[in-house]
Formats: sequence, structure tokens, C-alpha cells
Amino acid sequence: MRRIACALLHHPVLDRGGAIVTAAITNIDLHDISRTSFTYGLDAFYVVHPVTAQRELAERIREHWVEGSGGRRIPDRKPALAQLRVVDSLQAALADLGDDAELWTTSARRVGEHVLELPAAREQLQTPGPAVLLAFGTGWGLAPSVHAAAQAHLAPIPSVRADGYNHLSVRAAVAILLDRLLGNGAAR
Amino acid sequence: MRRIACALLHHPVLDRGGAIVTAAITNIDLHDISRTSFTYGLDAFYVVHPVTAQRELAERIREHWVEGSGGRRIPDRKPALAQLRVVDSLQAALADLGDDAELWTTSARRVGEHVLELPAAREQLQTPGPAVLLAFGTGWGLAPSVHAAAQAHLAPIPSVRADGYNHLSVRAAVAILLDRLLGNGAAR
Repeated sequence: MRRIACALLHHPVLDRGGAIVTAAITNIDLHDISRTSFTYGLDAFYVVHPVTAQRELAERIREHWVEGSGGRRIPDRKPALAQLRVVDSLQAALADLGDDAELWTTSARRVGEHVLELPAAREQLQTPGPAVLLAFGTGWGLAPSVHAAAQAHLAPIPSVRADGYNHLSVRAAVAILLDRLLGNGAAR
Repeated sequence: MRRIACALLHHPVLDRGGAIVTAAITNIDLHDISRTSFTYGLDAFYVVHPVTAQRELAERIREHWVEGSGGRRIPDRKPALAQLRVVDSLQAALADLGDDAELWTTSARRVGEHVLELPAAREQLQTPGPAVLLAFGTGWGLAPSVHAAAQAHLAPIPSVRADGYNHLSVRAAVAILLDRLLGNGAAR
């Protein structure tokens, strides 16, 4: 099994008009994605934000749960938040994960021509190879420049609706994707 | 395919000491679970709370996104929040879903002896039969009395970790479970 981590990007991401923006950190993203990442055995969960004050906020949340009273009150939360790492760029996350780490991007729609289908991605993760960083975007998703820098674009979670509606929160999308890529037990 | 809905219970649920309590409504639960439920084609998402003021809060959130400025700002959120229904009890949710609706409960650990494995549950949902209400607990999960009243207890999402750690948020658990039960495309 390859080493796997995920990253939540707050810049460069899209707003609902398609403009490139910087999103604010959402407390519940840090909790939910830490818990999901740790439950699925990831090496780390990188919170990526270019603004110092926002990174400090994320660090304070982490410390409250790892060293502070939060962790004493809910000890189960501690190991999950302990693998959260706050970095200023995607490059810093990749460098921390390993020199040859690959970037795989995610989106709610198919991006470009070279889409890696989820069953094939699952198989690749189980065969030896470089570490993989799975990147998720806040706001309306990752900016095109992030996809352009990636070794693979994961296929979106297929919609079950005739109208194609697919408007999951990033917290739900991370959960479903990690289960599809790494989950145990008979899938269906 | 059977008609399927989900319910988020705030009472009777367990606290971390195992006591039966009433949990407060969390705004982000309403958003995330509405969006996941609608994306997976459910008939309804029932928010169950015995306290009138808490139900009024949930109704206000719903209205903001269905009729108010929230829905104008983010139209994609509208149909998802529109299928949210606020009720005072699990019985009210079951009655609304249909006279013969079955209750299937969920938990992070196996409950009792008659556990319905997820692939079998998926198959049952695709064969004709009564409507099914999938019940999820806030806090530390559903009280034993809720499981006792159920026609089926769903198997927990299997852990991938050697230490068995499995501490997902209810938002993540709903997402993974709906994808396992109803998701499209090759699962693995």
C-alpha cells in the first residue's frame, strides 16, 4: 500500500462565479476531515492556507484538541487532530509527504481528458509506488492551475440522479472518496 | 427500488458516558445531510427533535435556504434543503414516510445479533418492498430503545485500521453509508 495523505486547499479555489479566491477556514472541516483521514489510515491531513492568521487559527484548533482541554474531554478526537498539519502551500504539503510524492486532484466534474477512474485509482494505491497526496478544494472547487499541476485527476463520485445533481459538501466528498479508494469489506 | 429516507435523531441518543440525552441541533448537519440525501435520491431527510424551540430553529434554517435569501444566493442548495422535514419524533417520521415503513438503525459498532450486512442491505433496497427509514444518531449514537424498535440494524462501516479506530462524524457516516447502499458506478 502506498503512503497516502489528503490536503484541503483554501487557495487557489473557485467561487460560485468561477473567480479564483481564497476561502476562509471552517472549523468543522478540520474536525470532520481529520476524523475521516485517521479512520481510513492516512498518513496526514494537510490544511493549506496562504494567510498567516488563518494558519494560526487552524493551529490553535489543533492544539486545543491535541494538547488542550478538548483532547481531555474527548480523547478519541486527539489522534485524529494530531495528524493535521498546517502548511502555506500545496508545494509545502508535497515536500513534507515525500520528495517524489504525486498530486492527485479531485472535483465534482470530470476535469480534462486524462481522468483516473476510482476502481483503477484504488488498484494503483494498493501497488507499490510513490506517496500520493489527494487534493480537495473548498469553495466551488480547485482552480484549473491545481489540476494542471497534478499527475492524476480522479473521476468524480458518480451521480445516481437522472438530473445529475451532485452537490456534496467537501466533508461528505472526502468521506465517500476515501471509502471508495481505501474502504474495507464487501463494497456492494 | 424502495422509497428511502433518512432521519437524524437528537433524542434519545447517548452522551459519551452512555447516558440518554437530548442533543442540540447543529446547523452544518442540516446542510450536509440534506445535500447528501438529495444527491443520493432519497425521498426525505427528517430532522427529529422533541424540543419545540429547536424544531423552530431547524425550520428557520430550512426557510432561509428554500424561500429566503440563502436560496437566491446559492440556488443549488435549495432542492436539497427543500426535502428536509422537521418532526418531533421518530414515529412522526415513520408515519410521514408511509404506513408500513420500516426502521433501519445505524451505529459505529455491531448492535445485537441480527445485523444486516451492507451488501445485503443494498440488495434489499433494490427489490420491491415497504419504504425504509435509515436512522442516524447525534451525540454518541442512538439509544438502545431505538435499535430495539427497528426491523434491521445495519452493520457498521468496517474499519481499515489494525486498532479498529472508527470515529467518523455523523455527516461523514451518512455520506459513506448512502454511497455503499445506493452509490452508482463500479464500487471498487
